[in-house]
Amino acid sequence: MSSKPLLLYTAPTPNGKKVSVYLEELKAIYGDKVAYDVQKIDISKNTQKEPWFIKLNPNGRIPVLVDRARGDFPVFETAAILLYLAQHYDTEKKFVFDAATQPNDWSEMLQWMFFAHGGVGPMQGQANHFNRFAPEDIPYAKKRYIDETKRLYKVMDIRLEGRDYLAGPGRGQCTIADFNVFPWTKSYSFAGIESIDEFPNFKKWFDRMDAREGVKAGLAVPA
Amino acid sequence: MSSKPLLLYTAPTPNGKKVSVYLEELKAIYGDKVAYDVQKIDISKNTQKEPWFIKLNPNGRIPVLVDRARGDFPVFETAAILLYLAQHYDTEKKFVFDAATQPNDWSEMLQWMFFAHGGVGPMQGQANHFNRFAPEDIPYAKKRYIDETKRLYKVMDIRLEGRDYLAGPGRGQCTIADFNVFPWTKSYSFAGIESIDEFPNFKKWFDRMDAREGVKAGLAVPA
Repeated sequence: MSSKPLLLYTAPTPNGKKVSVYLEELKAIYGDKVAYDVQKIDISKNTQKEPWFIKLNPNGRIPVLVDRARGDFPVFETAAILLYLAQHYDTEKKFVFDAATQPNDWSEMLQWMFFAHGGVGPMQGQANHFNRFAPEDIPYAKKRYIDETKRLYKVMDIRLEGRDYLAGPGRGQCTIADFNVFPWTKSYSFAGIESIDEFPNFKKWFDRMDAREGVKAGLAVPA
Repeated sequence: MSSKPLLLYTAPTPNGKKVSVYLEELKAIYGDKVAYDVQKIDISKNTQKEPWFIKLNPNGRIPVLVDRARGDFPVFETAAILLYLAQHYDTEKKFVFDAATQPNDWSEMLQWMFFAHGGVGPMQGQANHFNRFAPEDIPYAKKRYIDETKRLYKVMDIRLEGRDYLAGPGRGQCTIADFNVFPWTKSYSFAGIESIDEFPNFKKWFDRMDAREGVKAGLAVPA
């Protein structure tokens, strides 16, 4: 056991699970070098809006990673956390490319990370809101965000034609670009999407990701 | 003049201007080493959804950068374009930190880039939609996205307390984290936000960014 395990503030949401998935995939390779503690945040009580949490992330959102081995350095924004973990803990670059020697693969990985971070996450989040949580029934908004989420899945389907993963040469390689978006797609039905059968390449990727042991372990965090 | 200038497919939107702002700031330092041509895309005619464009960006969105000096490598997603330009063209790292020697500053810069890419852009974009373009008048959605955009400005206001820029030690340093979000904030009134006076640190940063010559030149692209 590392003397100073990482500390992950998280909750059982797609954004939280992006980070725990990568941490579990790292643990399967590096063992206790990537040990982490979990502190569950009760977002139903707005714990993430309390002053102590705002000091870690002024946006008041989970997840936040605190690196106790590097001066309690805090990291927020899921994709920034994945890139932080890649730099400091994925020392053999198992799930990331090397920016200097593989600049185009590195860039494509970033492109698909930003695609998910600015598209799938926020738009599927709005689908969740209008289909699950909004106090008014607004058919226009329900349809808008389900349609947009499906359009984004279709974009991934185009990308995944002849590929196994979003980034990397040939059929691609499993990277943080995949971990960054899979937990959102995993909860498609919660957002009001009935089926992903119309996106065959996407669906194969979905099943491939869903079968990974690290992914399964990460999706189960926090317990 | 470089023999193979960069090629920027863009339109006069906040996302397009993020890239032209950085290109103009780079040109002011590096001159013709960062020459670029502009091809204006008529998004009112859905040119960005045509097959030739989908080959460059399967998401069918502007901007796209094509690096003719590096085998016509295409880059989509605004923040990924900024990071690409930083790696290959900001050779003295004027507007970016060095990941290896300044890892915490590098991470904070990424955190604020993802904050804007997943928050300010998509949420202010929804405010634009419901306040400007939607075929139905939906007060709930109008208010939801104006409130959320203002909340995100407030998060930046908290960050900018005692700082000049979003990332970097001390009072910070002007980086791609600032270029990545300023063009969105510049059009706050279009989204239905009447004033930014309630965010004093944010407003000072806004005025500071707005006064930069490179920013002014970049906001005017495409002509």
